[in-house]
Amino acid sequence: MSADFSQWRHVRQTEVETALNAWVSADAPAGLGQAMRYAVLDGGKRLRPLLALAAAEAVGGSAVLALRAGCAIELIHAYSLVHDDMPCMDNDVLRRGKPTVHVAFGEAQALLVGDALQALAFELLAPDTGEVPDALAAQWCRQLAQAAGAMGMAGGQAVDLASVGVALDQTALEAMHRLKTGALLRASVAMGAATAAAPTAALDALSRYGAHMGLAFQVIDDVLDVTADSATLGKTAGKDAAADKPTYVALMGLDAARAYAHRLLDAAHQALDNSGLSHTHRLRALCDWVGQRQH
Amino acid sequence: MSADFSQWRHVRQTEVETALNAWVSADAPAGLGQAMRYAVLDGGKRLRPLLALAAAEAVGGSAVLALRAGCAIELIHAYSLVHDDMPCMDNDVLRRGKPTVHVAFGEAQALLVGDALQALAFELLAPDTGEVPDALAAQWCRQLAQAAGAMGMAGGQAVDLASVGVALDQTALEAMHRLKTGALLRASVAMGAATAAAPTAALDALSRYGAHMGLAFQVIDDVLDVTADSATLGKTAGKDAAADKPTYVALMGLDAARAYAHRLLDAAHQALDNSGLSHTHRLRALCDWVGQRQH
Repeated sequence: MSADFSQWRHVRQTEVETALNAWVSADAPAGLGQAMRYAVLDGGKRLRPLLALAAAEAVGGSAVLALRAGCAIELIHAYSLVHDDMPCMDNDVLRRGKPTVHVAFGEAQALLVGDALQALAFELLAPDTGEVPDALAAQWCRQLAQAAGAMGMAGGQAVDLASVGVALDQTALEAMHRLKTGALLRASVAMGAATAAAPTAALDALSRYGAHMGLAFQVIDDVLDVTADSATLGKTAGKDAAADKPTYVALMGLDAARAYAHRLLDAAHQALDNSGLSHTHRLRALCDWVGQRQH
Repeated sequence: MSADFSQWRHVRQTEVETALNAWVSADAPAGLGQAMRYAVLDGGKRLRPLLALAAAEAVGGSAVLALRAGCAIELIHAYSLVHDDMPCMDNDVLRRGKPTVHVAFGEAQALLVGDALQALAFELLAPDTGEVPDALAAQWCRQLAQAAGAMGMAGGQAVDLASVGVALDQTALEAMHRLKTGALLRASVAMGAATAAAPTAALDALSRYGAHMGLAFQVIDDVLDVTADSATLGKTAGKDAAADKPTYVALMGLDAARAYAHRLLDAAHQALDNSGLSHTHRLRALCDWVGQRQH
């Protein structure tokens, strides 16, 4: 990991934090705004906004627009964590080292926080200020809605729910993760790339990059669930095994899962090799960062 | 209520049902699609799509586009009911005469159904088929996101949550309802009207119509909660009083609440009188229908 990438990442993460701080207002009534800010601010790796920014850089697109798209995606990610943590789903009490939203604000408010964050994501993509061209706003809303919805993230969560205690094979496990976490990660790359008019072949290559990287991210998540402790992870460790959920580690063992993650990251690099794009170094570094993450 | 309006309403309601039936697919994995269809199809007055269609007719806009916008709004309405009915909110078991979604499919699936329906609403507004001009898609997404979000419906629900057992005065009660139900009803009119280029004065008049009609709708809801039985209502009657929620009936008494609703409906008619629009008869009839509803 180069010092250059570390610096880029910290600068971009600060930009994301500043933008989210401005866009997620405390003004919403009855404490809803404060609870939304609690759910979104001060935590998270901001991988999805970083991917959008790096993809925009790769195609010569707009960093200002990619920041907006990336923050919208981050709001969808944040809402999904709030709802996932609720008692009727994973019933988790710890997230990013803090009490989860339903613990801090109650279940009903947590439900509304998630709902309102999803709406805010789309509001960000279609501002009335002229900052986003209409064609891009329409495309972004379509991309985000598809990635978040029943044939994307929410659909993957439904498969996940239905998979507790079920022996999934690798094909079924990957199909689940392609939806549950993969759809939003691929959308991050695609929505960042949409800020410029890139050739179809380049967009296809970026899509393959996003798919490989997204799957690697999930395999590593499964590895960390077994090997990291809760303090490092900032969330409850070992909960997948405890919940009898299918994981790559359960399926193939720890060492093979680690090796598989690195093959996927290599494939992500190869997709960039064949993209015809010359400014892919941020996307490559993000890939490596995902491979090295400890939480 | 003229026979002409009844016929128009039935034809339009059938169109809405057919469109929702096509747009809410059973294909989503792990039963999610079926549960979404259960939440959306075969029930409901479809007031919001009817308002969008009537508003489009008033400004000489597109019925095809207004149907799409109206269905998107109906999906938001349907998701809000699914989440509202959950144990952590109103904990209701009966809706439109059927077991609520969490009773039929479990709480976790109900949470996902609501989340996926919200995403699908935005997906409908920005199809990749060229059927919706980009500028309209962007405007619709903005209008719907604002109406559904923290400064609209979700914000109103947060105020509602915080109001249990609290003695709200009429001003505070109206501020709550303007967000909780009013925002989406106003958006129905505005998004239907957005299918044509209407003069600002006409749009302002339609906005006043929507605001008065929306508030009347809520006052009548409070009246029906007291006077109708559960079988007629298709949901649990008397639950607002049982939950110690502030209502217009509690605030001003039954007769005064009824009289207030009718003053609001008169004001809605007056707004149309001053709109400069000549094809407002459907909007007027919808207003009267709201005034006469028994459930």
